[in-house]
Amino acid sequence: MAIVVPLEGEHGKRKPKPSLDSLLALVKEDLDKVNNVILRRMDSKVPLIPQLAGHIIASGGKRLRPMLTLASARLCSYEGNRHVNLAACVEFIHTATLLHDDVVDESDLRRGNATANALWGNQASVLVGDFLFSRSFQLMVEDGSLEVLRILSTASAVIAEGEVAQLMTSNDTSTSEDAYLDVIIGKTAALFAAACHVGAVVAGRPAVECEALESYGKNLGIIFQLIDDALDYSARQAELGKTVGDDFREGKITLPVILAYRRGDDEERAFWHRTLEDGEQTDDDLAHAQTLIEKHRAIADTVERARHYGAIARDTLGIFPDGPVKQSLIDVIEFCIERAH
Amino acid sequence: MAIVVPLEGEHGKRKPKPSLDSLLALVKEDLDKVNNVILRRMDSKVPLIPQLAGHIIASGGKRLRPMLTLASARLCSYEGNRHVNLAACVEFIHTATLLHDDVVDESDLRRGNATANALWGNQASVLVGDFLFSRSFQLMVEDGSLEVLRILSTASAVIAEGEVAQLMTSNDTSTSEDAYLDVIIGKTAALFAAACHVGAVVAGRPAVECEALESYGKNLGIIFQLIDDALDYSARQAELGKTVGDDFREGKITLPVILAYRRGDDEERAFWHRTLEDGEQTDDDLAHAQTLIEKHRAIADTVERARHYGAIARDTLGIFPDGPVKQSLIDVIEFCIERAH
Repeated sequence: MAIVVPLEGEHGKRKPKPSLDSLLALVKEDLDKVNNVILRRMDSKVPLIPQLAGHIIASGGKRLRPMLTLASARLCSYEGNRHVNLAACVEFIHTATLLHDDVVDESDLRRGNATANALWGNQASVLVGDFLFSRSFQLMVEDGSLEVLRILSTASAVIAEGEVAQLMTSNDTSTSEDAYLDVIIGKTAALFAAACHVGAVVAGRPAVECEALESYGKNLGIIFQLIDDALDYSARQAELGKTVGDDFREGKITLPVILAYRRGDDEERAFWHRTLEDGEQTDDDLAHAQTLIEKHRAIADTVERARHYGAIARDTLGIFPDGPVKQSLIDVIEFCIERAH
Repeated sequence: MAIVVPLEGEHGKRKPKPSLDSLLALVKEDLDKVNNVILRRMDSKVPLIPQLAGHIIASGGKRLRPMLTLASARLCSYEGNRHVNLAACVEFIHTATLLHDDVVDESDLRRGNATANALWGNQASVLVGDFLFSRSFQLMVEDGSLEVLRILSTASAVIAEGEVAQLMTSNDTSTSEDAYLDVIIGKTAALFAAACHVGAVVAGRPAVECEALESYGKNLGIIFQLIDDALDYSARQAELGKTVGDDFREGKITLPVILAYRRGDDEERAFWHRTLEDGEQTDDDLAHAQTLIEKHRAIADTVERARHYGAIARDTLGIFPDGPVKQSLIDVIEFCIERAH
């Protein structure tokens, strides 16, 4: 056997940097089918709909959520084709929430690209989001499983609740870690949970396995959001080609801030009040916020919290047989945590 | 028998002014149940959701769409209780679209009350709309009929398409009557059609009756929107306590404008170009627009067009036995048309 010399040794680790590669390799063929379904089913006689939907779907990320549906079905030895359309449903719901989020956040950029609302206006973004959301339910109806419809309609309601709860905690530095956790479980983890859950349901697996995959997805979603929120104050974010400090500018109360605020002195809290509650920010404030967060190890401890949920996620998979699919789902946990570094 | 002397003889008619009273009397008991379901199911642990949803649902209108579901079920001799929850679904979808519409239109007033977006911001309106929409699908899943889910998810997608199509025709004075008709069939008639269709489906009626009620609803929805669009330029609108000229100020291209534009001379068309395409409006322009619309009988002919769809709607009911429910549905047609006077 050859010895693999890791190239990513810059943090002094022995292991290669975790990636989505093993997952992607396993679901590649199905994911191509999902992309075809997405392209075909976002079509409409009203040309702006595929234009705008195509923009956000093309500029949009890793397809992590539909990959989770595909891999979950695969882990459950599913051999049919239903998981392809349902993975597309999951991505449609995700895309609809992105469109509405960008309107809610008044964002001009997403992953370095102009957002749909910046290009076509808030009006079109709201309505095309509604269209994709409805189209997703049409696809589920074609699939015909009331259980899948139940899971994804519930997830959709919980996402909206989480987003409204986030509005409520916005600019409120007294937000507790528990209240923050409720928000991210709603706005992010619910769809991760549903994406995985659905994979087990199409495979007709017993409740204990459906619940295990739902729980895996929920904990993975928590990790994903924790790390996203850590990255927003981290130099690493800039390396990933994204802007740093969006949450700070919007006055979002995320875990790095919650930790730095609780661990800070009166002068520091006055800083957080001014910048996040009163929204009075100068050009130097983001750098100062980053200094305070660093001083209180708030990024490192946010990542530590993520590791806790990673341990839970890993254990939920214990009831499934070892193999490449299970390993790829474990790799996803590591990937989501190590994004922070 | 007593002779009823109509009090509403001011237009020289013998008949009493058509009203929703007969429909309301027939479905009153069920409608109270629908209102209870709405109140119970719009609840959430996130307090802003029932607050905001309660505001728009309370300030909101006649409950015409859920009444149509109830009456359609009754016309089909349905004796169960499913129509109550499904009527609530229809109202939730309607409310969600109102919330999103007000964001899209940047409206501050709806029926003389402050809109939800004016009170709580666009963000909350978008998200609570999403919540109500998701909640509606959860209710349908509880009901358990894939056919109902198919009808209402399709209607929701068609509504979004219609609203996007409306954005596209906005400010475009070359919009044809046919293109306008496509828009209002999507944005308004699709939900009227679905509301009635669902009433027949819960009753388990044969396809021909389901289609008849769907067609009745569609044509009624066209009438409703035609008259709404006529009223927006009519003095009658002010009598109803609503503001006149909202469509004009927003540059919406509705049938009164389409007719006046096509029948106008070059100078008049220049006026429509300036006010609706270029959006350059002075304080006197609305009055001048009303004068042009009056000159070309554009309101009267919009009402004439509505009568055409009214005749179709009435004939679709021909296959159902005569009786008070059928008569109340015919009265609704007359009521929707006579709102213009």
